[in-house]
Amino acid sequence: MNATTVALLKRVSTATLTTQLFKRGLRNVFMQGVRPLGGLAENLVGPAYTLRNIPAREDIDRVEGFANPEHPQRKAVENAPAGHVMVIDCRGDPRVASAGEILATRLMVRGAAGLVSDGGLRDSASIAAMAMPVFCSGPSAPLNLVQHHAVDINVPIACGGVAVYPGDMIVGDADGVVVVPAHLADEIAVEGAAQEEMEAFLLTRIQQGATLPGTYPPNEATRAAYAAWKAGRS
Amino acid sequence: MNATTVALLKRVSTATLTTQLFKRGLRNVFMQGVRPLGGLAENLVGPAYTLRNIPAREDIDRVEGFANPEHPQRKAVENAPAGHVMVIDCRGDPRVASAGEILATRLMVRGAAGLVSDGGLRDSASIAAMAMPVFCSGPSAPLNLVQHHAVDINVPIACGGVAVYPGDMIVGDADGVVVVPAHLADEIAVEGAAQEEMEAFLLTRIQQGATLPGTYPPNEATRAAYAAWKAGRS
Amino acid sequence: MNATTVALLKRVSTATLTTQLFKRGLRNVFMQGVRPLGGLAENLVGPAYTLRNIPAREDIDRVEGFANPEHPQRKAVENAPAGHVMVIDCRGDPRVASAGEILATRLMVRGAAGLVSDGGLRDSASIAAMAMPVFCSGPSAPLNLVQHHAVDINVPIACGGVAVYPGDMIVGDADGVVVVPAHLADEIAVEGAAQEEMEAFLLTRIQQGATLPGTYPPNEATRAAYAAWKAGRS
Amino acid sequence: MNATTVALLKRVSTATLTTQLFKRGLRNVFMQGVRPLGGLAENLVGPAYTLRNIPAREDIDRVEGFANPEHPQRKAVENAPAGHVMVIDCRGDPRVASAGEILATRLMVRGAAGLVSDGGLRDSASIAAMAMPVFCSGPSAPLNLVQHHAVDINVPIACGGVAVYPGDMIVGDADGVVVVPAHLADEIAVEGAAQEEMEAFLLTRIQQGATLPGTYPPNEATRAAYAAWKAGRS
Amino acid sequence: MNATTVALLKRVSTATLTTQLFKRGLRNVFMQGVRPLGGLAENLVGPAYTLRNIPAREDIDRVEGFANPEHPQRKAVENAPAGHVMVIDCRGDPRVASAGEILATRLMVRGAAGLVSDGGLRDSASIAAMAMPVFCSGPSAPLNLVQHHAVDINVPIACGGVAVYPGDMIVGDADGVVVVPAHLADEIAVEGAAQEEMEAFLLTRIQQGATLPGTYPPNEATRAAYAAWKAGRS
Amino acid sequence: MNATTVALLKRVSTATLTTQLFKRGLRNVFMQGVRPLGGLAENLVGPAYTLRNIPAREDIDRVEGFANPEHPQRKAVENAPAGHVMVIDCRGDPRVASAGEILATRLMVRGAAGLVSDGGLRDSASIAAMAMPVFCSGPSAPLNLVQHHAVDINVPIACGGVAVYPGDMIVGDADGVVVVPAHLADEIAVEGAAQEEMEAFLLTRIQQGATLPGTYPPNEATRAAYAAWKAGRS
Repeated sequence: MNATTVALLKRVSTATLTTQLFKRGLRNVFMQGVRPLGGLAENLVGPAYTLRNIPAREDIDRVEGFANPEHPQRKAVENAPAGHVMVIDCRGDPRVASAGEILATRLMVRGAAGLVSDGGLRDSASIAAMAMPVFCSGPSAPLNLVQHHAVDINVPIACGGVAVYPGDMIVGDADGVVVVPAHLADEIAVEGAAQEEMEAFLLTRIQQGATLPGTYPPNEATRAAYAAWKAGRS
Repeated sequence: MNATTVALLKRVSTATLTTQLFKRGLRNVFMQGVRPLGGLAENLVGPAYTLRNIPAREDIDRVEGFANPEHPQRKAVENAPAGHVMVIDCRGDPRVASAGEILATRLMVRGAAGLVSDGGLRDSASIAAMAMPVFCSGPSAPLNLVQHHAVDINVPIACGGVAVYPGDMIVGDADGVVVVPAHLADEIAVEGAAQEEMEAFLLTRIQQGATLPGTYPPNEATRAAYAAWKAGRS
Repeated sequence: MNATTVALLKRVSTATLTTQLFKRGLRNVFMQGVRPLGGLAENLVGPAYTLRNIPAREDIDRVEGFANPEHPQRKAVENAPAGHVMVIDCRGDPRVASAGEILATRLMVRGAAGLVSDGGLRDSASIAAMAMPVFCSGPSAPLNLVQHHAVDINVPIACGGVAVYPGDMIVGDADGVVVVPAHLADEIAVEGAAQEEMEAFLLTRIQQGATLPGTYPPNEATRAAYAAWKAGRS
Repeated sequence: MNATTVALLKRVSTATLTTQLFKRGLRNVFMQGVRPLGGLAENLVGPAYTLRNIPAREDIDRVEGFANPEHPQRKAVENAPAGHVMVIDCRGDPRVASAGEILATRLMVRGAAGLVSDGGLRDSASIAAMAMPVFCSGPSAPLNLVQHHAVDINVPIACGGVAVYPGDMIVGDADGVVVVPAHLADEIAVEGAAQEEMEAFLLTRIQQGATLPGTYPPNEATRAAYAAWKAGRS
Repeated sequence: MNATTVALLKRVSTATLTTQLFKRGLRNVFMQGVRPLGGLAENLVGPAYTLRNIPAREDIDRVEGFANPEHPQRKAVENAPAGHVMVIDCRGDPRVASAGEILATRLMVRGAAGLVSDGGLRDSASIAAMAMPVFCSGPSAPLNLVQHHAVDINVPIACGGVAVYPGDMIVGDADGVVVVPAHLADEIAVEGAAQEEMEAFLLTRIQQGATLPGTYPPNEATRAAYAAWKAGRS
Repeated sequence: MNATTVALLKRVSTATLTTQLFKRGLRNVFMQGVRPLGGLAENLVGPAYTLRNIPAREDIDRVEGFANPEHPQRKAVENAPAGHVMVIDCRGDPRVASAGEILATRLMVRGAAGLVSDGGLRDSASIAAMAMPVFCSGPSAPLNLVQHHAVDINVPIACGGVAVYPGDMIVGDADGVVVVPAHLADEIAVEGAAQEEMEAFLLTRIQQGATLPGTYPPNEATRAAYAAWKAGRS
């Protein structure tokens, strides 16, 4: 985990990241149906630590199973490395919770960067008020056992229709969650930040009445003006 | 309607209630696609008083019909007992409103505990600001007659994919709405409140750094600590 | 664009408008799956100026295309008449953005009355904070090129499952967006405002304890009382 | 049940019936997601006899309940009048069966005109081979108790998104199932048969190379030719 | 329209075509939810001639409108060039018919290569028995006016979620319909036919017990064997 | 793999198996959206051998990858044990193929009992004509790489919304596919066959005019008659 990359990604929007990934041929990088639970003080940023669920079976998935410290859901929470984002594959099923306040709190206390699920979360009002950024399909009260059997930790999964490999960089803001392949994270953080800096300049011009042609995307003259402005700032 | 049960359920979360019902073999108790309209000062709690809709037919479902005091939608609002929750079966169709501000106001003035629909509601901003808790599939402007024909009052219905029998205890919070079968309401209110009390204790431990194993679910030692803490409080 | 009509529609709810249109035989006038992004200071009101998208094709829809001032998305933003509402047909696909902060800002600077899309919008937090009312299927980060090819400007389109002809009057509030056919706008604005005035009176009665029968809809006596109250006010 | 009407409707297509109903202002008359199970020797025709289901609850809906002759599903089959069509409201849920071979056989032996469900059917291969026309959402093995609680017999229901009142005339062919309101059945049978007779003539003309303009819909000359042809046949 | 290309595409599967297009970077070329109505004697092949629908509006879309020879649906059928495939954009809505037997017959008599719609078709049994290949979302009885307003002829459209530009080569078989961009049709017909010829050889080997490794995809030895076999055939 | 169990399950319907599993508390055992491709000479029966897919990523999932004998899709086909059923988790996505004719043929040649996928299959006409029973979400031409990355072999998966553990007994007929947990297969095969034998007797009675009460479910007298009939047959 590159600290500079994490710092840069804290202020690059998911919109910018999808554009950067699109330019590199990656079109399916944004989780569908996954949104923030509560407001966000800053971007969610961190490498993915994953949990995979399959459908529950009544004879296997019983409340008693949680007492086993090897239960994958509990074990995953207990082992997610600090600074990582726990990403849960719920097959996009919003009908039940994938976790609740106590597990989310344990994750936060252990230093996780955040929690992302394409299923629901219970105790949503409490979790929304926590400092740790959390994304899911929405509030849902029923316990995970109604639909889910936690089966694997830190394997490649699907979440929100996107492939998530352990270690991929997860970034979330008010628009939602983007998965940046691990090997592209450093490069995209730098170029994404540069794109945003220029777009802030372009936005100012647009606010001042500039037309789209010539400004967005910028033509030679606008690029030169941006370069001059940027030089003047430093 | 047991006043103690109502009082207890005012402070038990729907998450806890689904767990209690799961332990009793009931897995399909949480309304899907039904969420609060506006913030909630406290839980919605009350026995169900139901209204059933079928699809509208253009020659039957005309605006003139509302002048008939026997129109089931209007009659249901006018007859819902105080303290009860009006629950409307809209076949989960979010495209039109099942009621609006005037009907919701009449319900509130008559002392209803709340309103739950698996269809939309119009005048959503006004209703969201009312003191009475209201849950629905979301805001939707079109009048009910575009899709619905109100046909029956206080019969068993479907709402949000859950069976609702008249008199079942309806409980709603920020996560959504749970249907507690009438014969289980008293028992579950007591056990749910007990579960929540213990989980508040466990959450404190987790916040202080306790690990999940041993704490959630609690082992013997944690249970003993909880018993001691509880004894110390009284 | 009739200024009186626009002024009236600023204070008529979409709920009322759907009822007025229903009485004239128009049942499919409310956009499904389209909701406000952020709070609304007042109703969105203005004639429709449309943009049509078809699915993207990888060899055609490339980032370089935006440099062409004839690119329909950019051209539409640059040409939407002041006071008009830009309405974008995204085939109801919420997976990607149909626009972002810079385009929305340009629209606002040029005097557009608002923006409506049945697709997503990126930079949603920034757009939600803008003064111009904006409606869409929700936040979505990916750029439009992942799914959309902008192809036509100001032709009849579908948006949220409703036909939108250029010049139709678009009205949006917290419940969502209604399309009023151009030739009905003046008439419906007047009758809608009258309906709302009377319903405000009826609501007061309901708040004071009046029963639905006789009040909503009003019988002769209530209508007379309303007429008297109205006369007394002027 | 008018025998002439039934006889006419045996040879009028559901396409023609929806046109006749559209001309009378009825637009939502065709069941969505309901299709024939197996080939059809002739149209399904008969008045509706309905069964309503709500979601199952584990403590109520147990296999033992079928032994009770008052169980609504079994009672409905045992009481459906000869010549009637049993129509089952499954809330459009295709996940489980609403009946199987034994119940369908009992219906057939008792003289029912057919069976229509907007849920699934089990033993689908056997039922498809029966002489009685059957329509459903498709094959599905699980027993009804997994999702359904049969609750009411011969009340107004929804089926395939359409209102079905007991006694409405149900007509099904390869395209699907249309619900003809009871009071319109006689009139529409006559006019539908007349429309079909003329369209058979028009189709012959089209097959011979006639252009659409003038033929479909027919102009004065074509109407006259049809009248002459028809006169010549009698 | 290149006759050799059409002849080649008559015997290349849509599976092969999607692979050829994938190799050229085109991933969204297969219509979703569109399937053959009846058996196919041979592939559907021909350039696209398009019709665009938007949602119906009750005051505009009336049965009387069909008498106007300029009605776009009727005009499109009357003007589709021989050898072309009429492709109808119904916004993927399966609820109503986009055409019926008479229009399909007129298309066939005029020499159209086929008909593709992402909406329904009425008179499905008759159309399924016609010689012309027809693809749609499935049978549906209601007339188009319930949901559709035909608005444009031969403009770029969406069909089954794929962009269709007039002149694109449409190919359909039992798997469904592929859209081949016009400029790639000749090249892909040749390479697709070559791929199929080799895969027929590989399939024989697999049927004889060859392992996947080395055979599918073929290694050097298998490619040499194929070349020898092919040389031996000519 | 118990040969007697396999033989029994060849003639027990999936309807009967879901009832047997329901009686044992298992309610979610039937794959949704998975149906036979082509007719079935006999039931599909065999233990599950699984393949798991996650969403594709453009830089990883390229055609060249198939040349690697370790590619999980190819490796799974090459290693599925004789008599087993290959079950593929496609996250229920019908948009692309999970396999085609060559892979299905290789599976058949190697002695697999069948193929089940909750995704599509290409070359569907050819596969439908094969002797091996195959089930999927339907025909779909695009190659798997458009949406899928094969990642794991013989791990627990989801298929059609049901948990499938390697070794679970898979049974398919015209109604669809049931997953019988491995430890219940022998017992359920015996009891299911017994249930079917009795139901065949009950069906004969119903065909002869017996009423449902007393026959289905059978009362004491009917059970005695069945016992006598059965004794008489042996």
